[in-house]
Amino acid sequence: MRLEEAVRAIRSPDPSAMQAAWDRQATLTKPPGSLGTLEELSVRLAGLAGRCPPPIPSRPVVAVFAGDHGVHAQGVSPWPQAVTAQMVANFAAGGAVVNAFARQVGAAVIVVDVGVATPLPAEAGPVPAGAGQDSPGGGPVWRRRVRPGTRDLSETSALTRDEVVAAIEVGIATAVELIDAGHDLLLTGDMGIANTTPAAALIAAFTGASPAEVTGRGTGIDDATLRHKTQIVQRALDRHRPDPGDAVGVLASVGGLEHAAIAGFILGGAARRIPVVLDGVIAGSAALAAATLAPPSVAAMVAGHLSAEPGAATALDRLGLRPLLNLGLRLGEGTGAVLAAPIVASAARVLHDVATFESARVSQKAAGGSPAHDPVEAGR
Amino acid sequence: MRLEEAVRAIRSPDPSAMQAAWDRQATLTKPPGSLGTLEELSVRLAGLAGRCPPPIPSRPVVAVFAGDHGVHAQGVSPWPQAVTAQMVANFAAGGAVVNAFARQVGAAVIVVDVGVATPLPAEAGPVPAGAGQDSPGGGPVWRRRVRPGTRDLSETSALTRDEVVAAIEVGIATAVELIDAGHDLLLTGDMGIANTTPAAALIAAFTGASPAEVTGRGTGIDDATLRHKTQIVQRALDRHRPDPGDAVGVLASVGGLEHAAIAGFILGGAARRIPVVLDGVIAGSAALAAATLAPPSVAAMVAGHLSAEPGAATALDRLGLRPLLNLGLRLGEGTGAVLAAPIVASAARVLHDVATFESARVSQKAAGGSPAHDPVEAGR
Repeated sequence: MRLEEAVRAIRSPDPSAMQAAWDRQATLTKPPGSLGTLEELSVRLAGLAGRCPPPIPSRPVVAVFAGDHGVHAQGVSPWPQAVTAQMVANFAAGGAVVNAFARQVGAAVIVVDVGVATPLPAEAGPVPAGAGQDSPGGGPVWRRRVRPGTRDLSETSALTRDEVVAAIEVGIATAVELIDAGHDLLLTGDMGIANTTPAAALIAAFTGASPAEVTGRGTGIDDATLRHKTQIVQRALDRHRPDPGDAVGVLASVGGLEHAAIAGFILGGAARRIPVVLDGVIAGSAALAAATLAPPSVAAMVAGHLSAEPGAATALDRLGLRPLLNLGLRLGEGTGAVLAAPIVASAARVLHDVATFESARVSQKAAGGSPAHDPVEAGR
Repeated sequence: MRLEEAVRAIRSPDPSAMQAAWDRQATLTKPPGSLGTLEELSVRLAGLAGRCPPPIPSRPVVAVFAGDHGVHAQGVSPWPQAVTAQMVANFAAGGAVVNAFARQVGAAVIVVDVGVATPLPAEAGPVPAGAGQDSPGGGPVWRRRVRPGTRDLSETSALTRDEVVAAIEVGIATAVELIDAGHDLLLTGDMGIANTTPAAALIAAFTGASPAEVTGRGTGIDDATLRHKTQIVQRALDRHRPDPGDAVGVLASVGGLEHAAIAGFILGGAARRIPVVLDGVIAGSAALAAATLAPPSVAAMVAGHLSAEPGAATALDRLGLRPLLNLGLRLGEGTGAVLAAPIVASAARVLHDVATFESARVSQKAAGGSPAHDPVEAGR
C-alpha cells in the first residue's frame, strides 16, 4: 500500500459505535466510571472497529524497526553504533527484554531492518546460554533496509524525501502483511543507537517545544553529554527550520528511518482499523508524523506507557493520549507496548464479558450518588 | 495456620539473593536501570523467594473477600447493602469485571464469603446473557463467614478481637490452601458495599493521616455524602482512639471482615514466601494491618495499581511501595491486581530469559555515560 492510499483509507472513528460503547459501559455491573482510563479506551476501540463491542485482540505482534543514525558521530550516545546490529541478532535469537516480555504476554516478535548501518550476521547466532529457556524462539528479521543509516542531521538532511517515503511504506507494508497474517493488535518497537536524538528533534519540530524540554538522557548519558545532545538538537532545528505541517519534510530534515517506518506502521494499522500500541519516545515522535499526514490516524493509537524520556510526555499530550503504564521504562524495543497489550485486550473484553445490572439481577445505586438510606442524624 | 504461627514464619528478604538480582540486572543486554520500577521489583521477588532468579509466577489466583458493614446504615454509600451478596453471585457466575480480567490474563478466581450480611443464593445463578462467552466459568464461593457483617463502627466496635483474629485466620488459610493447590501468585480482591469507609478509618488510624486526606468517593458519591462520610470516619476515630501499634485492636474498632481477611491473606503469602499483589484502597488498609502484625511481610507485597481513592496513596507511601499501574480504577474486586499480574511475571522473567552482554556478544557502553566518540567540535 502506497502512502497516499493509506492516508486516503484512514477514516474517522465511528461515532455511533462509540456512543454504543459508552451506553453499554453504563449498564455493566460496576459503578459508572469505575474503570477509569479503560472505559475511554474501550470506547476508542469501538470507534476504531466501527462496532460495539469491538473485537478482543488475541494475536498481538511487536515489530521492532531498527535503524542507525549519522548524528551518532556527534557523540550523543555512549554506545558504539555496532550495538544496533548486535541487538538485531539478539532479538532474532530471542535474548532481549522485548522477547522475554512478548513470551510472557503471548505476542509475536518480528524485527525489521529498515536502516541498520552495519552488516547483519548472515544468520542469527545460537540462543545465548540461559536465554529463552521457556520458548527459545526469537523473531525473524525482515530485511527491508532503505539505506544504511541516516546522514548526520546536525550537518545536513538526515534523509531525502524519497527515502522518507520509502521508509514510511516499509512500515505500512509491515502492518498490512502482519494484519493479513491474522495479527489484530500492532505494537511498535524500535532499536537504533542514538535514536532519541532525532526523536527529540522531531518532537520539537512538530510541537514547537524547546530542545531543552524534550531532549533526555536516552539510555543513560551524563550531564555534559545531555547538554551537548540538546545543543545538537537545537543546531539541527536552526539549520533546517522544518515546516511542522510537512511531515515528510520534517522526517527528511531531522528524522530517522525507524521513526519514518513506525509512522507508516501506524498509518497501515489505522487504514485497516487495527489498534496500534505506541511504545516510548521514538513511537511518540513517529506518531506526531502520522497524525500530521493523516489526522484521523490518532484514533488507532493507544499510548502503551509513559517513557522516562521527557519528549514522550510532550508527544502524548499533543496527541491527546493518556499512557496506560508508567513504570519508568526507558529501554525502547517495544517493551512498554508489549506490557500494555493485555490491558488493551482487557478493556475490549469488558464490553463482551461483563454482565449487566439487569442480566445479573444486581441492584443499582440511588440516583445522583446520594445515599440509599438517609444519613442517621443522631450522634453527630 | 494460626495467626501467631504465620507471624513467626515470616522472615526478612534474603539480602544475598537481592544482591545477586541487582548484579544480574547489570549484566543483561539493556542499559542499566532502563527497566525502571521492574528492576527493583525483580530484586524484591528474588529477596522474597530467597533465590536468583526468582520463580516466574505462572498460576495466579485472585481471592475476592466479601463482607458487609454496619456503618452502611449511616448512609455512606448510595448502593443497597444487598449488592454485596448479588455481586458474590455475579462473581460465581463469571459476570463481573474481575472475571473478565482474570480470563484475559489467565488467573483463577475464588470468592470468600467472610462476612456478607444477607443470605447468599443457594447456588450461583445461570450465566447472564452475553457474559463469559469465551470461558463461562466463574469462581467458586468459599463459605467462611465469621459473622454477617460488622457492627456500625461509628457507634460501637465493628468487631470483637476474637472475630478479627478469626477473619485474619480465614485469610491465612485461604492463602495456604491456594498455595498448596499450586498457585504461585496471590492477588487480593474485595467486595463490600460501604467498605471504603472502614478502609479510610484504618488508614487514618495506622498512619495518623486526617480523615479528610484519606476519605474518598468510593464507588461514586456526591459532595454532601463525601462530607458526611468524612465526618463518620472522624467520629469513629474520636470514639475509639485506636492504638496504631495494636493491629487487631484497630481492626476491631474500625475495620471490616474482608479487611482483616486480606491482612491474613497477605500474611499467609508472606509466610510461604509467595508474592501478594495488592489491589486498591481496601488492600492498602489491610496491608498496613499486616505490616503492623509482621513488619517483614512488606517484602511479599506488590502494589498492583494506584486506586483513585485518596487513601490508597497514603497507605502505599507508608509501606514504601510504588504502584505498577495507574489507570484511575476505583472498582475493587481485585481488578487492578489482576491486570498487574502479567507485569509481575514479566519482571521475574527478565532475570531468566534475557541474554547477557557477554553471551549475546553485544558491546557495552563507554564508562560513566560519556560518549563513545568525542563530540565533534566543528560547527558549534
